[in-house]
Amino acid sequence: MKGNCVVAQSGGPTAVINASACGVIQEAMRHPEIDGVYAAYNGILGVMNEQMFDLRKEDPSTIEGLRTTPASALGSCRYKVKTDEDYAKILDVFRRYNIRYFFYIGGNDSMDTADKVNKLAAREGYEFRAMGVPKTIDNDLAFTDHCPGYGSVVKYLATMVMEAGRDTEALYTTDTVNVIEAMGRNAGWIAAGTALAKRSEEDAPHIVLLPEAPFDAEKFKARVDHFLTTIERCVIVVSEGTKNPDGTYIAEQKGEFAKDAFGHTQLGGAGFFIKNLVESEVKVKTRFAIPSTIQRSGAHFASLTDSEEAYTTGVAAVRHAVSGESGKMVTLKRVSDDPYRCETGLASLSDVANGEKLFPTEWIGPDGFSVTDEFVRYARPLIMGEVKPIIDGGLPSFMRFKKNFVRP
Amino acid sequence: MKGNCVVAQSGGPTAVINASACGVIQEAMRHPEIDGVYAAYNGILGVMNEQMFDLRKEDPSTIEGLRTTPASALGSCRYKVKTDEDYAKILDVFRRYNIRYFFYIGGNDSMDTADKVNKLAAREGYEFRAMGVPKTIDNDLAFTDHCPGYGSVVKYLATMVMEAGRDTEALYTTDTVNVIEAMGRNAGWIAAGTALAKRSEEDAPHIVLLPEAPFDAEKFKARVDHFLTTIERCVIVVSEGTKNPDGTYIAEQKGEFAKDAFGHTQLGGAGFFIKNLVESEVKVKTRFAIPSTIQRSGAHFASLTDSEEAYTTGVAAVRHAVSGESGKMVTLKRVSDDPYRCETGLASLSDVANGEKLFPTEWIGPDGFSVTDEFVRYARPLIMGEVKPIIDGGLPSFMRFKKNFVRP
Repeated sequence: MKGNCVVAQSGGPTAVINASACGVIQEAMRHPEIDGVYAAYNGILGVMNEQMFDLRKEDPSTIEGLRTTPASALGSCRYKVKTDEDYAKILDVFRRYNIRYFFYIGGNDSMDTADKVNKLAAREGYEFRAMGVPKTIDNDLAFTDHCPGYGSVVKYLATMVMEAGRDTEALYTTDTVNVIEAMGRNAGWIAAGTALAKRSEEDAPHIVLLPEAPFDAEKFKARVDHFLTTIERCVIVVSEGTKNPDGTYIAEQKGEFAKDAFGHTQLGGAGFFIKNLVESEVKVKTRFAIPSTIQRSGAHFASLTDSEEAYTTGVAAVRHAVSGESGKMVTLKRVSDDPYRCETGLASLSDVANGEKLFPTEWIGPDGFSVTDEFVRYARPLIMGEVKPIIDGGLPSFMRFKKNFVRP
Repeated sequence: MKGNCVVAQSGGPTAVINASACGVIQEAMRHPEIDGVYAAYNGILGVMNEQMFDLRKEDPSTIEGLRTTPASALGSCRYKVKTDEDYAKILDVFRRYNIRYFFYIGGNDSMDTADKVNKLAAREGYEFRAMGVPKTIDNDLAFTDHCPGYGSVVKYLATMVMEAGRDTEALYTTDTVNVIEAMGRNAGWIAAGTALAKRSEEDAPHIVLLPEAPFDAEKFKARVDHFLTTIERCVIVVSEGTKNPDGTYIAEQKGEFAKDAFGHTQLGGAGFFIKNLVESEVKVKTRFAIPSTIQRSGAHFASLTDSEEAYTTGVAAVRHAVSGESGKMVTLKRVSDDPYRCETGLASLSDVANGEKLFPTEWIGPDGFSVTDEFVRYARPLIMGEVKPIIDGGLPSFMRFKKNFVRP
């Protein structure tokens, strides 16, 4: 089927979502079936607003530069496509621009959008192929062994925890406890991944708090005390999604620890909550760090394995689409752990859209504040190797598109 | 003069303070005048508590590993030596352990301590040499062109700002403003350094808030509005020491924006204050990041120039001490900018102890929210080159001493 293609990125960026875009773009340009290779500017919004730019007018070195540039170079959005009008508008734009291939790089919501556009096109008899490319630092997509983006956030955040852990070790006589807040609203995959930093009892992180392990304040304080007694310090990684036994977020809980200066319940407040709890109840000076979006943008120390897999899923999406698949997301299937080997597979967009993969409770350590060796065996291969950024003037150099917008 | 030497680290760690220790230790071991090479565990506290360990009993590869290990591997402290009893105790320990050489790696307070011990020893007729090795991410020591530790914190934090800046650029339709809090209580050197990330108008940081530029809320809001109008986003770096025109810290100011949940004035609250100000007055969604100690521990992306200079200052301290100097701190003297070349020099400990080098106001840009090209020419050479960490299992590998404590 001949026609144009559009690639779009959606949701929270990662260190390697651009590598997936690079895979899609470079592969699309190799297929004579695909004429125009367009990027939707800011995800599905770029389709709805007819803001699509021509990737064939970009320098090939700019496109190659996607492999070492963090965040979403095509632009992203958090727009949730909901109404029939939205979907009709999207399909109308696809028709008018003769877009026959749609590659959507994102998480659950994006897969849902791609699925619904695909079904609408089928109902309306518009020949069209929609493929999903998985992306999320949260690693919570079902039907795939892991998600591109996860290995890099873990590699970088675990490194931060190691390094800040050495800082706490050096200054434990004054700055005794350090709390680092990890992203991950519903699933503890990211916080859990920082446990890879631990090679001995001495090493940070000493306590990991996960959404999947209900927060027990008394057990937690006892665990902090244990480390203050044995190694005189404690580095705590807390997932922003850590929950109380009643299912509410710890950062949302009533009381004096969790409100911002407006009295609003605060997002991203889990680290602050734990810092206040330790200072007021364990009575030791506590620092806290909130790496926030920095953790998911660490292109300068991204996982090479992750980056290559991200690229490969992008390539696979195009190949499958050209060979006739539609309504599928490319998955990663682990063939072996040691040596680590992964292949791509396919899952239906609607299955992925409705699934969510939490951190398995059997991978939580017996103390409730650590992870098992089985998790480490799962996660270690995903952080191997380093992407080498281009350095100019002592700092990484990232690409940016010229963005020549197309007209129908 | 024959005898033992002790090396100590003090204050907040850096990514390269261990490189300075490595320089001291490796050079001390080359001089027959120096018999025992000891480390004081946790700075001057290790002397006062007679907790000193024998560096000749450590593996040479462990000592070499100091070059790629962040924070203070000898242990650090924030103990302020004040009383005559403290100083008498220190000198007594030095006598009993036959310590004739004291190398103190730290900032102003450490130089003051070394100076006073040196003077006391002279008054009491104890043959002794005390040398200071400069260390501070704050870059606020006088009599030296710059301080080891500064180049690395700038390189790493500027990289964080670049990467998080790309995240904001990708998701500006929802997360429009991002505030990143930089360390630096009194001097804006670190926040200013993030401006090195800027290669074009598009690039972060768009606004830099420095302690040396009194905070004008109206001008600031107008500047944020400017960027929202022109590029639809704004990345702000705020020094934790940013002050109001009356000299109080912005994070300390009265009102609803600056208190923690206890109602205490909060340290490290400048980022939170600016986030709240932008959200409530400019009415756009604002994220904030507090890299905290992570920024000063970034061994995995430390500046090679900084690391080598840190090492060199350690070596120079030993050479000068052996050749008869005492009561001095090693300085860095810039010989030329391009090609960049620095030599070591000496300054008196008491001069350094009483000096403080703020960010020059003539290096603040005309808008009050940026820096001049002259500053960039000063700072750029300091971030050149990358320290290559040892990687094991996808993560950096750091050394740790066995610590065989010595007896008199």
